[in-house]
Amino acid sequence: MKIAVLGHGTVGSGVAEILTERKTEVSSAAEKEIELGAVLDIKNFSGLSYSDKFVTDYSEILDDPEIGIVAEAIGGTEPAFSYIKSALKKGKSVVTSNKELVAEKGAELLSIARAHNVNFLFEASVGGAIPVIRSLYTSLNATGITEIAGILNGTTNYILTKMFREGQDYFSALADAQKLGYAESDPSADVLGFDAQRKIAILSSLVWGSTLHTEDIPAEGITNISAKDVYLAEKCGFSIKLIARAKRLENGKILARVSPALVKKDSVLANVNDVFNAVLIKSETAGETVLYGKGAGKLPTASAVVADIIECAKADGNIKSVFWQNGAQNTAADKNSHRERFFIRTLSKACFMPKGTDEIEENAYITPPLTEKELFMLEEKADEHCRFISKIPLFE
Amino acid sequence: MKIAVLGHGTVGSGVAEILTERKTEVSSAAEKEIELGAVLDIKNFSGLSYSDKFVTDYSEILDDPEIGIVAEAIGGTEPAFSYIKSALKKGKSVVTSNKELVAEKGAELLSIARAHNVNFLFEASVGGAIPVIRSLYTSLNATGITEIAGILNGTTNYILTKMFREGQDYFSALADAQKLGYAESDPSADVLGFDAQRKIAILSSLVWGSTLHTEDIPAEGITNISAKDVYLAEKCGFSIKLIARAKRLENGKILARVSPALVKKDSVLANVNDVFNAVLIKSETAGETVLYGKGAGKLPTASAVVADIIECAKADGNIKSVFWQNGAQNTAADKNSHRERFFIRTLSKACFMPKGTDEIEENAYITPPLTEKELFMLEEKADEHCRFISKIPLFE
Repeated sequence: MKIAVLGHGTVGSGVAEILTERKTEVSSAAEKEIELGAVLDIKNFSGLSYSDKFVTDYSEILDDPEIGIVAEAIGGTEPAFSYIKSALKKGKSVVTSNKELVAEKGAELLSIARAHNVNFLFEASVGGAIPVIRSLYTSLNATGITEIAGILNGTTNYILTKMFREGQDYFSALADAQKLGYAESDPSADVLGFDAQRKIAILSSLVWGSTLHTEDIPAEGITNISAKDVYLAEKCGFSIKLIARAKRLENGKILARVSPALVKKDSVLANVNDVFNAVLIKSETAGETVLYGKGAGKLPTASAVVADIIECAKADGNIKSVFWQNGAQNTAADKNSHRERFFIRTLSKACFMPKGTDEIEENAYITPPLTEKELFMLEEKADEHCRFISKIPLFE
Repeated sequence: MKIAVLGHGTVGSGVAEILTERKTEVSSAAEKEIELGAVLDIKNFSGLSYSDKFVTDYSEILDDPEIGIVAEAIGGTEPAFSYIKSALKKGKSVVTSNKELVAEKGAELLSIARAHNVNFLFEASVGGAIPVIRSLYTSLNATGITEIAGILNGTTNYILTKMFREGQDYFSALADAQKLGYAESDPSADVLGFDAQRKIAILSSLVWGSTLHTEDIPAEGITNISAKDVYLAEKCGFSIKLIARAKRLENGKILARVSPALVKKDSVLANVNDVFNAVLIKSETAGETVLYGKGAGKLPTASAVVADIIECAKADGNIKSVFWQNGAQNTAADKNSHRERFFIRTLSKACFMPKGTDEIEENAYITPPLTEKELFMLEEKADEHCRFISKIPLFE
């Protein structure tokens, strides 16, 4: 079976490399011969062992009956979306690492794949090499999943790790991350939480069967975390992580959010450092499961794309458990249906904190569980002199 | 499709319970109706919603053409081994949590399953609810796995956690574990490392395709770990965990071992506490992956058995990637082909430690990397007064 790779950037070149250099292992895992058939790119990459496979016209791939699987590694919505749709309609399975597209168009693409009895798989779109998507639709599928929480963005995790280990402030840690290629020159999508927002949208949609729209997931990034917050959190036995969460409430609604959170130092998530990612899954029968690994990088991401290629090659038609629909069924829950404790830092002594508040340090508090509205009302009460400098939920 | 459960102990009753109470989710995941068909037990359990399903004669199950999958939860080698063989030969798939049997007879049973185009699956035999076996034969299958290391025994991990958190000695922590039902009245198989030895044998056999015999895996338990070791390890930034490891050397041989080891406190494995298990997988393309979860307990273990039932129900014949053979190919490596650092505690000042040794505390040292033979020779040199009280490798 021949594979076409769309786009020869970081991920695409990694996929082409693995398919070429690890052909024997990949074919043996797929139980049939797997061969790189074509690479679509506008540039010409000479000097590679597969330089003769480059094409610039997508119709050559679409019209080649030997190409059974297309690996999309262009990124963004267009032309990726049109390319994927036309491949699925031609009866070719598609695998992708494109989280933007899966979060936005997943339901539509999964439905087209099902109608044509092929597959649309996207393991690499969340958590890179971590086998989270596959575990969710196979091993953990019937366990009654109630909650997912993850460290899903490597850039912000690297920055926070630096701030904790070296006492750096946010901007100098960001500059370091940029120097090492872990953050882009415009880091907004990562540091403002939009990348993690897309990923938790995908996990939630898959697990509970109905699209959770990114616009229904409040996202707060790490740009307001100060060295002082880090110092105080550390002192009280916490780490600060950017946590993406989705929880199914009793009424079937999904409560989801991306925000920094204080995590107990001796928990597994607190010790996910540098660019690593991890996903915590809570379920009725399996209890707590955590999957940890390389969330980004050329070969880790490409290895997940190749694992999906193998899965498509082995599948006997459409895999029914990978599916969700657009529907009102699992809409976002009311944010005030949930209470959590908050770490609060104020400008000066706050005399209006609710009963049960711990003063952990001068002008630093941990509140009892509050709804967002209750927190807001508390903040309203604060006057100029003791206004809130930081308010970070505890992840418990 | 009807399922037979053999044995109505902890795991078997959990499987019967999930199949009955979560019938809709299980059937939906399996893409066909899944129904509990029979439970084999010599005892009669009345008052259950499935009390009418109990049988005492195994031939009723074997001869029932509607029963397509048998879940073995008897444990031990006989009659489990004979029962499984006859079910496979009758064209029924078998799933089990029986690590003893899989470690000892895995190759033979997998070969019988393949010959009859059915499946023999055993996710629950290693790491309970953790989706480790499935990840190894699917997502991580073609990544070029070089090493596996895990905390695979919940009893010893609970005892070590207690020793660390509360400064207890081994015997009082063991007594606590027994009181809570986390350790058996005869805890030998757990505390001497034999349980972990079987589990790492299974993982190694699956990953590298050839039986690694338990007798080729040196196993040392936790019975010699003292409160003083714990205190010193903690002081130097380490935790002590019972680590089961298997590593493929360049020559294709497998270096495997079960032993206590010092693990850096800020690593993911060091923060796997209580009865939780975790497996670290290192591979060429996916890098480091860690899978963490409930390693034991009724519902977590049963949920893994049910996940295998679902996998069998969906499979179109034998799953080729779940297989290994008995063969000389991956025999155990020479223990002296490997060097590691050791934590050493002596009775009095040791003046003969090799160059590069760190004295971390009075009479406590961390050596440079040594082979087992070099360590042995070092110990030989020690006279009565400074003999080694503890020698624990570092897991790095």
